[in-house]
Order: sequence, then C-alpha cells, then structure tokens
Amino acid sequence: MKILKNIFKNSRSNEDGIFFGEIQNIIGFKPSSIQYYQKAFTHRSTNKMDFKGNPMNYERLEFLGDAMLSAVIAAYLYNQVPTGDEGYLTKMRSKIVSREHLNELGRDLNLIRFVESKVPTQHFGENIHGNIFEALIGAIFLDKGYDYCQKFIHKCVIIPYVDIAKLEGKVISYKSLLIEWCQKEKKSFNYDVFDDNGIDGQKYFGVKLSIDNKVISKARATSKKKAEEKASQRAYFVFQEMIDHKQ
Amino acid sequence: MKILKNIFKNSRSNEDGIFFGEIQNIIGFKPSSIQYYQKAFTHRSTNKMDFKGNPMNYERLEFLGDAMLSAVIAAYLYNQVPTGDEGYLTKMRSKIVSREHLNELGRDLNLIRFVESKVPTQHFGENIHGNIFEALIGAIFLDKGYDYCQKFIHKCVIIPYVDIAKLEGKVISYKSLLIEWCQKEKKSFNYDVFDDNGIDGQKYFGVKLSIDNKVISKARATSKKKAEEKASQRAYFVFQEMIDHKQ
Repeated sequence: MKILKNIFKNSRSNEDGIFFGEIQNIIGFKPSSIQYYQKAFTHRSTNKMDFKGNPMNYERLEFLGDAMLSAVIAAYLYNQVPTGDEGYLTKMRSKIVSREHLNELGRDLNLIRFVESKVPTQHFGENIHGNIFEALIGAIFLDKGYDYCQKFIHKCVIIPYVDIAKLEGKVISYKSLLIEWCQKEKKSFNYDVFDDNGIDGQKYFGVKLSIDNKVISKARATSKKKAEEKASQRAYFVFQEMIDHKQ
Repeated sequence: MKILKNIFKNSRSNEDGIFFGEIQNIIGFKPSSIQYYQKAFTHRSTNKMDFKGNPMNYERLEFLGDAMLSAVIAAYLYNQVPTGDEGYLTKMRSKIVSREHLNELGRDLNLIRFVESKVPTQHFGENIHGNIFEALIGAIFLDKGYDYCQKFIHKCVIIPYVDIAKLEGKVISYKSLLIEWCQKEKKSFNYDVFDDNGIDGQKYFGVKLSIDNKVISKARATSKKKAEEKASQRAYFVFQEMIDHKQ
C-alpha cells in the first residue's frame, strides 16, 4: 500500500512539474506558487473546495483578472495615446478587452488543454477561452503582483494584438494595404502557407511572405487568415521603416 | 524687470511648496513629480496645453484613476471575502466605487480647494468631487506606481469607508444598533457634538460618545450624522471585542 501511495505521489509530482513548465513557458517567468494557476484552470463542475470549505474554481480569479487587465490596458493607452481624450480611451479599451478578443487570446494560447472539469471541455461555449485567460491574469496578480501582471499582458496581449491604427479603424487589413502597395510599386508578392503544428496538438499555420521573390516576413497563427495578416503587418512595418530612413 | 520676475518666481515656488505639502498630507507620502498632481486639479476651462499641444487637464487622469481604483478594490474584496462569488464581488465593488460614494470621498478630503479653473467652482455639479478624487489616484499611479496607489486607496477609501457588513445591508446604521444595545443593557448614552473646524476652512463636526458617563469613542466628519455614525461604529467594535474576549 505504501509503495502504491508513493508511486501515486510521484506521478502527481511529475504531472505538477509538467504543468509548472508549461505555465512558465506561457507567462514568461517562473511561478512562485503553482496553486494559484491550478485554481485558474479548475472548473466549478469539479466541486472542489479549499480546506476552509470555500469553492475552489476559476470564477473569482476571473473577476480579479478582468480588473487587472482593465487597469493595465488603461495605463498602456494613457501613455501610448497622449492625444486621446477620456471617451477615446474608454472606447479603445473596450475594443481590446471585448469578450470576442479575450476568447481569441485564450484560444490562441490553447489554455483549454489545462482545464480540469467533470464536463467534457467540448461542451463549454466559446467564452471559456476568455474566462480562463482572465483567471490566469488573476493568478499572476496573486502570485507575483501588479508588475508581473503588466509584463504578461504586454507580452501576450499588447505586443501581439494591440495595434492602435487598426483599432481606430484607420487600417482595416494589412494584407489589402500591402497588396495595394505592391501593385502600385509594380512588385510581385507571394504568401506561402504551410502547416506548422506545435507539440501541444493545437493546429497552427505558418506563412512566409515574399516580395519580388525575397522572403520579407514570417508569421504563425491559428488560422491561415490570421497568419497572413500577421505576416503582412510585419512586412508593412519593415517597409515603413525603410521609407522613414530614406526620408 | 529682472527683480519683478524673481519675485514672481519666488511667489510661485512658495505656492508650489504649499501645494506639495498639502498633497503630501493627503496622500500620506512624498510626491516625486508634483506635475502629475497639478494636472489632477486642472479643469478643462483653463484651456492649458502641454509643450506638445495636448490638453492639460484632469479628464484623462480620471480615466486612469477609475481603472486603478477598480483594480485595487477588486483585489481587496477578493482577499477579504473568500466566500463571495463573482456576482457578489462585482456588486460589492460597484457599491464602493459608486458615483455618490466617490463624490463623498472627494468632498470629505475637500479636494475642490485645489482646483484651478476659469469657471467658479461653485458652478460645478456634485460630480466634480468624485472626478478629481479619481484623477488624484491616476496621478499617484503615474508618479509612484501601483503599490502606492493601493496604499492611498487603503488609507483614504478602505479603512475609513469600507465596511463589508454595512455594504451587505446587514447593518443599516451603527447608531441605531448601539442605541438598541444600550436600551437592552439598561445603559445611558450621550452624543456630545461640537464644531471642530480644520485649518483648511472646511466645516467639520466632532462627536464624543459616552456610555454610562464614560467617553467610549470619538469621531470627526463633515456632517453631524456622519460623525455620530462613525463614533457609534467605533464604540460597537470596542464592545464587540470586549464580548469576544469574555467568551
């Protein structure tokens, strides 16, 4: 019996170790207390309780993460757009933290693979992706404080997704902008799309964008359209910089 | 001309020094960059611009402060009420950060005395009090970061105003609770109210609450009712503790 218990204990530790490593990869720094992250991926259907008898699932962490995300985005927009008034800042923030956008963020990180639940995860609606993304932010706040929370949001929300020009509706699609530019400048272009699956079983697409037969940018995303858009945006900024340097 | 300029410069510095001291008194620590606080009390009617031509008034800081206040209160409630679910936490937070409550907080600190405006401040509606209170929080965040923001909110919002039992509607008034208790225990009570004005010209009331001719608690607030309520709450906690110790 004792041996069985030890085997069980070791296998749990291994599992915890894998989870620890994967969380570290996602958040970009070492967690201090892994318990917060375990809670962030525990669904209410498990009926888990802490030692005081309080429900142990991600719902309260979601509330906390939502508040932290709003604060970090508010501070980012405040600094980034000094010309934007209160109305503009409020509107921009709600675009960034929209339910749809948060679901996309959670889905792209494939957070659902960590969810512990009594109900098959396929039965959850779309919002589960955004909810656990927010819960993860809540866990980071409790574990490491505001500054790390801000670090994570910069890495996983602001850098890859927040593009002020696009949010303002000034740029609808970088792909169409780039195609237009190529046609005007009489340059050939080619989007080379290929499957690029990660080790986690999530379906990814890779794109190489060539202009005049020279690879200009690469991108990877969960849909062909998104990967093409990302590659176009990167190419656009490369050219923008080149033009700025010439002037 | 040079002498005049110097006199002017000195008188501005003195003014800035007084402002610096008063802000330090209110926030409870030394500001690093006084400019943020000056902005927090500048009304749009002044039409002030920064050196880049962007409007310099408190409206954008109000947006930032609102976000930080929401985040700090969320974290406080998360830790303070481990039994409260997401719905409970959301409801409690909106009670604490309600427009009415924020106006009360700003009014009690008499923040309006700092407002620089082309319009007489009497012409502003009630919301000015809450708005500049939020702007002050935004200024603290920019000047000193999240942790100081949290410190200030604990000192000026949570400690003096946030009473979970009262917010939950379990206690409507500590004064009536205390009177009821005195009658049940056959004790005499007396609220001794007196004027207690500060140096800043704001009208304050002081209260000494005696039970069986012994002063049990004291309080100071901007209305008689508030001062009596505060004193009653303090007395209530004194007795609560005595009863807990006996048990």
